[in-house]
Amino acid sequence: MSEHGKTPVTVLGLGAMGTALVEALLAAGHPVTAWNRTASWAEAVAAQGASVASTISEALAANTIVIACLLDYDSVHEVLDPVAAELEGRQLINLTNGTPGQAREMSAWAEGLGAAYLDGGIMAVPPMIGTPAAFIFYSGSGTVFGHARTALDTFGGVNYLGADPGLAPLHDIALLSGMYGYFVGVIQAYALVGSAGVKAREFAPLLRGWLDAMGGFLERSAEQIDDGDYVTDVVSNIGMQAAAYPNLAQAAEDQGISAELLTPLQSLMDKRVARGHGAEDLIGVIELLKK
Amino acid sequence: MSEHGKTPVTVLGLGAMGTALVEALLAAGHPVTAWNRTASWAEAVAAQGASVASTISEALAANTIVIACLLDYDSVHEVLDPVAAELEGRQLINLTNGTPGQAREMSAWAEGLGAAYLDGGIMAVPPMIGTPAAFIFYSGSGTVFGHARTALDTFGGVNYLGADPGLAPLHDIALLSGMYGYFVGVIQAYALVGSAGVKAREFAPLLRGWLDAMGGFLERSAEQIDDGDYVTDVVSNIGMQAAAYPNLAQAAEDQGISAELLTPLQSLMDKRVARGHGAEDLIGVIELLKK
Repeated sequence: MSEHGKTPVTVLGLGAMGTALVEALLAAGHPVTAWNRTASWAEAVAAQGASVASTISEALAANTIVIACLLDYDSVHEVLDPVAAELEGRQLINLTNGTPGQAREMSAWAEGLGAAYLDGGIMAVPPMIGTPAAFIFYSGSGTVFGHARTALDTFGGVNYLGADPGLAPLHDIALLSGMYGYFVGVIQAYALVGSAGVKAREFAPLLRGWLDAMGGFLERSAEQIDDGDYVTDVVSNIGMQAAAYPNLAQAAEDQGISAELLTPLQSLMDKRVARGHGAEDLIGVIELLKK
Repeated sequence: MSEHGKTPVTVLGLGAMGTALVEALLAAGHPVTAWNRTASWAEAVAAQGASVASTISEALAANTIVIACLLDYDSVHEVLDPVAAELEGRQLINLTNGTPGQAREMSAWAEGLGAAYLDGGIMAVPPMIGTPAAFIFYSGSGTVFGHARTALDTFGGVNYLGADPGLAPLHDIALLSGMYGYFVGVIQAYALVGSAGVKAREFAPLLRGWLDAMGGFLERSAEQIDDGDYVTDVVSNIGMQAAAYPNLAQAAEDQGISAELLTPLQSLMDKRVARGHGAEDLIGVIELLKK
């Protein structure tokens, strides 16, 4: 604890996100030691009161809690491998973007060196850090999460998911996957109407209203997945949907628009129907994603 | 006009949707002549007051307004080709599912026979017909739309899009494309968290909150598309997104889940970045869909 009673924190990496994290910590009164490979990037946070470490060893020695926010996991290893022995006793919180497998590997590596490891998945862009709009998934060491909690609270909402360090990036990427699916649909819809000269602004309220009306798929599917029961009482089963789905590609073809974004779902639907599940709901295709 | 002042209508096709249309018309007092290839399917609507035509010729002769709601456009041709000469003077409203190209072909065909043609795209499942939740896109003959309007109003909301008969199926399919994209994202997200034993019901509120927070993509993209300006003031440009996107496939791989549903967007993003648009917004990939 610092003289102000606020946990002191080291932050490695001062890109846009790392800088936002440092600023949120400083704004809340946490003493911060910052390090960046390119030292000049530290000037802005130094002006705001951060101590700047000139070496990674100095940064690690400064505080028990070390937050890494670098380009990718390879960068984290590049920075920390040369000073691996100095991680002993540290509480490493890795907020770098990565995958569940990378998080699990790094957790095992850090623990082998005598460090405790917490992984984080940031669901925000840098300007949102420090506002209620930001939230961060955490998983891994519950001890680190508890110890660092007041510092982590300065970034935004927190959601601790459990001891498996892969859970935070998994949740992060699951949300991003949901988002990109939604984006894909919006892009394809605008491409189609645009091909007939329809303004996207005119079509937007129709698309918004339709997606709002169809939104219940999210909650209904959750129940069906958990219950393992894809039998539908809805009128439009996957057999009917698979039969009508080629119209999406044909309409795109008619209009000179590629249908490539929505092609993969067709083969999953066809496969599901061919295996005798035509009377069930669309969500049953989830079974075919399991390798 | 009938003795009640309600426009009489012929309906061809008594599947679930055709039957729902007939029931909505009868409930509003419109005299209905119904025809179905398999005559026994007409018993239900006959009991509710519909006249049942025993031949397609009888059905066409009964009323000026003829609504077709069959399996697909091929079915419409199979039914009407043998009696093509009898279409003269009819107002054909085709609510069968199809593509813009099919609608334009059928419109030209019907007009060549002296019939006026209106195409429709039904945005509802049969139980919604006759409720405010249903709406139908129409395009083609404005005269037919005006003449049939009181009958069409019995089905749900109407949206007349203009003289090009392809516009109704195009709007229909654009909304469906938007919906399937959204579904794809939800399916992939549940598959990912499910692979770690996370209950879909637990994840659903997180996914709902995240998609709601990201929803502005729909309206923001509309403005960018209409303005032809994909330059972004958002922090996360397509270059950054393309660099992080492989994590979606890698995370799926880590968890034994197929990433096939979201694969096509990767190549569009990479292509867009390679062509020098890395500092722009994701929505710019729409340019690559134009063939």
